[in-house]
Amino acid sequence: MSQPDRQAIASAYRDIQEKICQEISRADGKGTFNRDQWERPEGGGGLTRVLTNGRILEKAGVNFSAVEGPLTLEMASNLKSEAGQFFATGVSIVMHPINPHVPIIHMNIRYFELDNGTYWFGGGIDLTPHYVVDADAVLFHQGLKVVCDKFDPDYYPRFKSWADDYFFIGHRNETRGIGGIFYDHLKADDTHDKTSLFDFSLAIGNFFPEIYRTLMERNHAQPYSEQQKHWQRLRRGRYVEFNLVYDRGTRFGLLSNGRIESILMSLPSEARWDYNHIPPTASAEQYTLDKLRKGIDWI
Amino acid sequence: MSQPDRQAIASAYRDIQEKICQEISRADGKGTFNRDQWERPEGGGGLTRVLTNGRILEKAGVNFSAVEGPLTLEMASNLKSEAGQFFATGVSIVMHPINPHVPIIHMNIRYFELDNGTYWFGGGIDLTPHYVVDADAVLFHQGLKVVCDKFDPDYYPRFKSWADDYFFIGHRNETRGIGGIFYDHLKADDTHDKTSLFDFSLAIGNFFPEIYRTLMERNHAQPYSEQQKHWQRLRRGRYVEFNLVYDRGTRFGLLSNGRIESILMSLPSEARWDYNHIPPTASAEQYTLDKLRKGIDWI
Repeated sequence: MSQPDRQAIASAYRDIQEKICQEISRADGKGTFNRDQWERPEGGGGLTRVLTNGRILEKAGVNFSAVEGPLTLEMASNLKSEAGQFFATGVSIVMHPINPHVPIIHMNIRYFELDNGTYWFGGGIDLTPHYVVDADAVLFHQGLKVVCDKFDPDYYPRFKSWADDYFFIGHRNETRGIGGIFYDHLKADDTHDKTSLFDFSLAIGNFFPEIYRTLMERNHAQPYSEQQKHWQRLRRGRYVEFNLVYDRGTRFGLLSNGRIESILMSLPSEARWDYNHIPPTASAEQYTLDKLRKGIDWI
Repeated sequence: MSQPDRQAIASAYRDIQEKICQEISRADGKGTFNRDQWERPEGGGGLTRVLTNGRILEKAGVNFSAVEGPLTLEMASNLKSEAGQFFATGVSIVMHPINPHVPIIHMNIRYFELDNGTYWFGGGIDLTPHYVVDADAVLFHQGLKVVCDKFDPDYYPRFKSWADDYFFIGHRNETRGIGGIFYDHLKADDTHDKTSLFDFSLAIGNFFPEIYRTLMERNHAQPYSEQQKHWQRLRRGRYVEFNLVYDRGTRFGLLSNGRIESILMSLPSEARWDYNHIPPTASAEQYTLDKLRKGIDWI
């Protein structure tokens, strides 16, 4: 069977972006995604779509890009590769809701190819509740396991543990949220051909609107207080810390002349930092902090 | 003449912290600095003082530390040094005002010593107006030049240019503010003995409350709109970007198990990010952006 080439992959990812924007916009019920088409001076470009001030979502970004050109020295060094041409395409999403009872969500699927013929897939999806709700976390992880199991029974445990390690704020000794899955450098082998890896990434892309619509519907009508909104802004501050200090995609983009507004659309509208904020004992906020650690088996 | 040793330096820096807190608290007229004494597991400790919700200042942090212990591998590698013991003491300050017409200010003076006998001084002070006011910028730079010229006529031009390069947000192609001075690895030589370098750092420490009191008094009573407050939060977002992505002290602290709350007290209470925010042509906001570049001769 013929394997998907870069055009087929980019085109399918572009379709996923469109589908996600349509479904999330419909679930929001008010906000729509604008369209910013952009070109990369060195080759390729993208389409950045941002929804702001919706009914449920405060700021939601869905970015598609398909870029190519000579490997920069930094890229070549990171990849331990010779100089040459690369091609990369992907979809990147972060959504910040208004209501602190709705979680922040992130998803990324990407494909990378070098002109020497090597290629790989990477991606992930993780959930960052301002208030951890066990039932939501279980639903999220169960759903991910179903998606993973269709492709390989090892995927879920392996990529779940990888996400625990990756989405980790070292200086706070906290995970970013309740995790999800993360994988990188996934290459074809005896068990999985390129089509299977590609289909796995599409399955994650299709899972995204399904699960997030559910989480939006379940939680967006819950009342919240100004004190809970304050806590949400503090948690968003942690999200900013993770993205600017650790996130590989963000740091790579910032240090390599990427399109800044598309990279930093992941940051929340409003965030805050209070000196030495400590939630009351036995509060919902403390309960959340207690759940922000690696190795929790949500299923 | 005997040269100051580590105890004398730490003690004088501790006094500077106390003096600054007193003078700034008096200028604020409402807020007071709390006291958090802390110890570093590997040796030494510090005193973190934070004022919040004052009359003029929203969040102001003044940190003193005097730490010692074995060089970490990362420190030794950065210093191109053998393993050994180090001692470091310094005062670090960031102040975020309520009124967007009052600038954010930062100051740091520090002394570093290795057990092989080498030592050096570092430091800097820079101003980040939400709205650039030429007269304030001129006053600030003129004051700095007077302080520098007492020690060396080369200091101001050299350290002003160093600040332009250091306080620079590469991914935005913007300076953090209107600069100031920055220096590092300042060692005794034929023209300056250790006492002179030490006295220079004290002169900067003493300049800080004098200039910032003036800037607070000049600007805090100006009326401001919600739109100007919004712009202030966006500029604070840039401040967060600089500190988390570039600032050496912050990144070193985060990645080397420093006291997180003392390091991140530099972050503002409230910051925001709007996707692709572009100020109107010929606005005060656009005027400010036009001044956020290297090489402006304010004097």
